[in-house]
Amino acid sequence: MAKKEFQQIQDIGFKSLIESFKKYTGFKRDNILKGIGDDASVSMQSDGKVSCTSSEVFVEGVHFDLTYTPFQHLGYKLVTAAVSDILAMNAEPEQILIDIAIPNKYSVQMIEQLYKGIDAAAHDYKVQVTGGDTTASHQFLAASVVCIGVAEKDDIIYRKGAKEGDIICVTGELGSALAGLRILLREKRAWQDNPEQQFKPDLQPYEHVVQRQLIPKARIDLFNALKDSEVKPHCLIDLTQGLVADLSDVLKQSGVGAEIYSPAVPISLEARNVADEMNEDVDKYAFYGGEDFEMLFTLPEPLVEKFKAEFDDFIVIGRITEAEKQLTVNTGEEHNYQIEIES
Amino acid sequence: MAKKEFQQIQDIGFKSLIESFKKYTGFKRDNILKGIGDDASVSMQSDGKVSCTSSEVFVEGVHFDLTYTPFQHLGYKLVTAAVSDILAMNAEPEQILIDIAIPNKYSVQMIEQLYKGIDAAAHDYKVQVTGGDTTASHQFLAASVVCIGVAEKDDIIYRKGAKEGDIICVTGELGSALAGLRILLREKRAWQDNPEQQFKPDLQPYEHVVQRQLIPKARIDLFNALKDSEVKPHCLIDLTQGLVADLSDVLKQSGVGAEIYSPAVPISLEARNVADEMNEDVDKYAFYGGEDFEMLFTLPEPLVEKFKAEFDDFIVIGRITEAEKQLTVNTGEEHNYQIEIES
Repeated sequence: MAKKEFQQIQDIGFKSLIESFKKYTGFKRDNILKGIGDDASVSMQSDGKVSCTSSEVFVEGVHFDLTYTPFQHLGYKLVTAAVSDILAMNAEPEQILIDIAIPNKYSVQMIEQLYKGIDAAAHDYKVQVTGGDTTASHQFLAASVVCIGVAEKDDIIYRKGAKEGDIICVTGELGSALAGLRILLREKRAWQDNPEQQFKPDLQPYEHVVQRQLIPKARIDLFNALKDSEVKPHCLIDLTQGLVADLSDVLKQSGVGAEIYSPAVPISLEARNVADEMNEDVDKYAFYGGEDFEMLFTLPEPLVEKFKAEFDDFIVIGRITEAEKQLTVNTGEEHNYQIEIES
Repeated sequence: MAKKEFQQIQDIGFKSLIESFKKYTGFKRDNILKGIGDDASVSMQSDGKVSCTSSEVFVEGVHFDLTYTPFQHLGYKLVTAAVSDILAMNAEPEQILIDIAIPNKYSVQMIEQLYKGIDAAAHDYKVQVTGGDTTASHQFLAASVVCIGVAEKDDIIYRKGAKEGDIICVTGELGSALAGLRILLREKRAWQDNPEQQFKPDLQPYEHVVQRQLIPKARIDLFNALKDSEVKPHCLIDLTQGLVADLSDVLKQSGVGAEIYSPAVPISLEARNVADEMNEDVDKYAFYGGEDFEMLFTLPEPLVEKFKAEFDDFIVIGRITEAEKQLTVNTGEEHNYQIEIES
């Protein structure tokens, strides 16, 4: 079949685009243990340690909306996203580099707020800002954030390590970031419909979910607890695309399936209230909402209780199965269903 | 004095903006030997080696123009720019991460050309593409490229090392990249003035300078020659902002001045011809034109001949002096002049 000469990216989607260009990896270096495909790349140092590097890009209007995102929060969130990827390798984040392209419409003061947010997060996560580039842009602000961390080679945890029988655990709670986004978008629409009105939305009742959307925290506490307890999960990933998407990638890379008990998936009361208000299914928020920056990990059953004694902000949501089961959702009622994992 | 509440970035310029936000460096890590301020950051590993990381952002219409830049060349140039920064630390580039934000107007095929250019350059420079993010953008393509390299701690060369009496050397030739840009912009204007005409500019006579603009090469040969000869320059920088801007930064960071002999600055015949055609001063191209990706380094006088025996594609253009001389340009005629270095 002849290829179309002008094939639009939306015809194939970004996922396929990335997949088809994965082969362009340049020169193969012996010390690169992992290139594209996990939360971060992993390269061997001569001292037995490895360094992990992740990179993410954020474009205004695609990944964030400055009509409701304070610059300081945006700065904080950029760092959270980058740091979270390194934590998801079970490595210690050490430095970040931030490239920012800034359009004229934003003031020096606004950009200073952005840097203050970056600085605050960098202090919280104990990472140093070691570089980056600041340049002009057209209409939209764009940022690219790189984080570099370090670990003993044997401490690294890949997505591909989940084993049949493992218990699936998630930290914190899921779906609140999407609930917060729903509220912010509703209030933005209300303002757009009545631009003359003095706009002052009452976000107080939604404070928790809005905060989860605007200034999510990376789970450095889990990283520290794993280190202290000397428990090493078989697999680890940060939940940024949504539980189903991220777990599916784990299953695909590990060559296994999973059964999850949907009533066990941790959801906050606040997220439930938002879903009720919107007449939506809160399970959808938890399953498909992204940007929670919680961690999913799998452990052999005997280690679950051991680890719980060290760190209690996680919950068991299911179990790794043979691959044939795909991603089976056990609802605790009659309508269980299966989500197919692409191979 | 009260600060203005909305100060436009162009009121202070990007250089001041970057300068004033340099303080937001987050948490200070002991193993970071150099943060912001050189071609790359430098962090210590436990094996006595260091890793160097650089990051640059490129925005369509600001840093490149796709009306005359083939996608494949753009890909190549992004990698050149990133690799060049690591070479400018005298470190060996090992891996790159490339974030790309792509607007709808470009096809899958175009983006594949971009990746092919990245791949080709990565092969030429022996670096592996280990990661990056590909995402949607609005109207303009933006890319951010990170390069990571490795070196023995004592091999790193900073901008701050130039010493009074050192000989200033530059590789290759300067100003051709700007000459190429001048030609491309002239032809673009000609096409914009007559959009109905079948546009096929004859770039053949300008091939050398156009290539220098579109697919510059990073000087990995200099890096290899320095390694083989065991000559270590006191200071090293890649020429991306222009000779005057880059040398000024060296002088400022080293606390010295310089005298350069302008007739010695290496300029190609092709760049001279373009300047003549444009009725412009070719010395301006060489002094203020950026993106040549040549290297400037300083050596104690006795080492110049020794190194010349190993590597001959460089030329002596002047000498490091006491700071008071600022940047003195000796024209070989009567109108010598001084360029002041900001402190």
